[in-house]
Amino acid sequence: MEWFVEYYNGSALMIGVKKLIFEKKSLQHIQIFDTVDFGRMLVLDGKVQLTERDEAFYHEMLVHPAMLTHDNPKKVLVIGGGDGGAVREVLKHDPEEVVMVEIDRDVIEACRKYLGIDGGALRDGRVSVVNEDGVEFVRNCGESFDVVVVDGTDPNPVSQSLISSEFYSRCGEISEIFVTQSQSPFAQREYFEAILRNARFRSRRVYLGFVPTYPHGLWSYLMGSNRRSVVPDYEVIRRRFEGREIKTIYYTPEVHLASFVLPKWLEDMIERC
Amino acid sequence: MEWFVEYYNGSALMIGVKKLIFEKKSLQHIQIFDTVDFGRMLVLDGKVQLTERDEAFYHEMLVHPAMLTHDNPKKVLVIGGGDGGAVREVLKHDPEEVVMVEIDRDVIEACRKYLGIDGGALRDGRVSVVNEDGVEFVRNCGESFDVVVVDGTDPNPVSQSLISSEFYSRCGEISEIFVTQSQSPFAQREYFEAILRNARFRSRRVYLGFVPTYPHGLWSYLMGSNRRSVVPDYEVIRRRFEGREIKTIYYTPEVHLASFVLPKWLEDMIERC
Repeated sequence: MEWFVEYYNGSALMIGVKKLIFEKKSLQHIQIFDTVDFGRMLVLDGKVQLTERDEAFYHEMLVHPAMLTHDNPKKVLVIGGGDGGAVREVLKHDPEEVVMVEIDRDVIEACRKYLGIDGGALRDGRVSVVNEDGVEFVRNCGESFDVVVVDGTDPNPVSQSLISSEFYSRCGEISEIFVTQSQSPFAQREYFEAILRNARFRSRRVYLGFVPTYPHGLWSYLMGSNRRSVVPDYEVIRRRFEGREIKTIYYTPEVHLASFVLPKWLEDMIERC
Repeated sequence: MEWFVEYYNGSALMIGVKKLIFEKKSLQHIQIFDTVDFGRMLVLDGKVQLTERDEAFYHEMLVHPAMLTHDNPKKVLVIGGGDGGAVREVLKHDPEEVVMVEIDRDVIEACRKYLGIDGGALRDGRVSVVNEDGVEFVRNCGESFDVVVVDGTDPNPVSQSLISSEFYSRCGEISEIFVTQSQSPFAQREYFEAILRNARFRSRRVYLGFVPTYPHGLWSYLMGSNRRSVVPDYEVIRRRFEGREIKTIYYTPEVHLASFVLPKWLEDMIERC
């Protein structure tokens, strides 16, 4: 068997691959593999972004908690997420307008051609795709959004500014509810702590989900708002989830609440930040 | 860097190692490594059993939910767990008597000599160590226990019978509360489903914890009882946890409740079993 390997600190994940079906080096090094056990897999700059088998675990937990924290999210901004998975989940809430800002047009094209996990979402009439740096977009943006979702890659030269305090502060101004993936607090503690330090909101919570092909399987998300509480109220969340008739394979309103409960070591780490 | 590799289905985990500090091939192939990022690591038959860095995540979640589901656990049986980590957590509840039945004496000796994670627990006056097959022990056992904890390895020729219906049924007879680790429902679905089919109790629940060095980081546990409900009541659990003054780094009563909430795909898998 051929293996793709992603290295962390002192550990690594190997994914058995059948073949490399697409590769391009432009803004980022894009690779799409056919794997033995995880379906097709998107890799950017050597890091697993998603596999067909577990991408919904990630995209559902990134999108639904924030969308359900808003009573009526009509206008949504997605930054990053060129694969279309986040927009696909956003559309389940029947918004009127979705803007996706993806810096790398090649990612969008490669995913559309070889993955198709967006289920047509990026061609939906309510969705506009902007090919621009997300940080620039929010800096110059004159509008505001009900929900802003940041689906960025690991901090790197392309996405580093997506974890800056300037970026988060601007996101707080233009959004009612904000959410970002916030890396692995176990395997990527420095990135996680940098995000915590920079992403200041009046109401803020970290929550967790299981994503098997991300570092050691534990992934975190950060939700924030300067105008509302992001602490989930079970009855409200459940009513919205049922009212919007959302279909999922990982997320439930019960999982939403449970995901906000953190192991003691992580509560302690957040408190010290 | 040298790498230890554990293979799953179509994927594998690599752990950077500094050196192999102990190795013996007897009943099982025992290896203890010094790793780059996880402290010392115990490997049995090629599978990671624990690392110093994350063993408490596992042992706390194996032991505390069951011990706190019992109002006064005085007599406890631990099957397997030769490293002593489970007994160490059991002793935090101040029991009168703990019996540990470990089939492989070499594991106990190697762990005592090179790991010391038991913190002296196995030399505690209330603890007796029985060097016997756990299945034989419960078959012939004339006593009963408040809590029975099964801390077995992945099913293999040595531990296969630890997931048999005969074994679980006998454990149900001799225990008030029973708990076993139940493998990864994501990466080891066949084992997980076999455990579910065989471990029948009047009240039964699967719960989850994060163990970074186990397959893809997601680990499951099964708690059962024929005499009590194992569904956690938060106020009761919290009162017992505080009353017993338990110190932990992962477990909290809040985590206990949240760990019983399963992703939808897993709820569906359990329902079909």
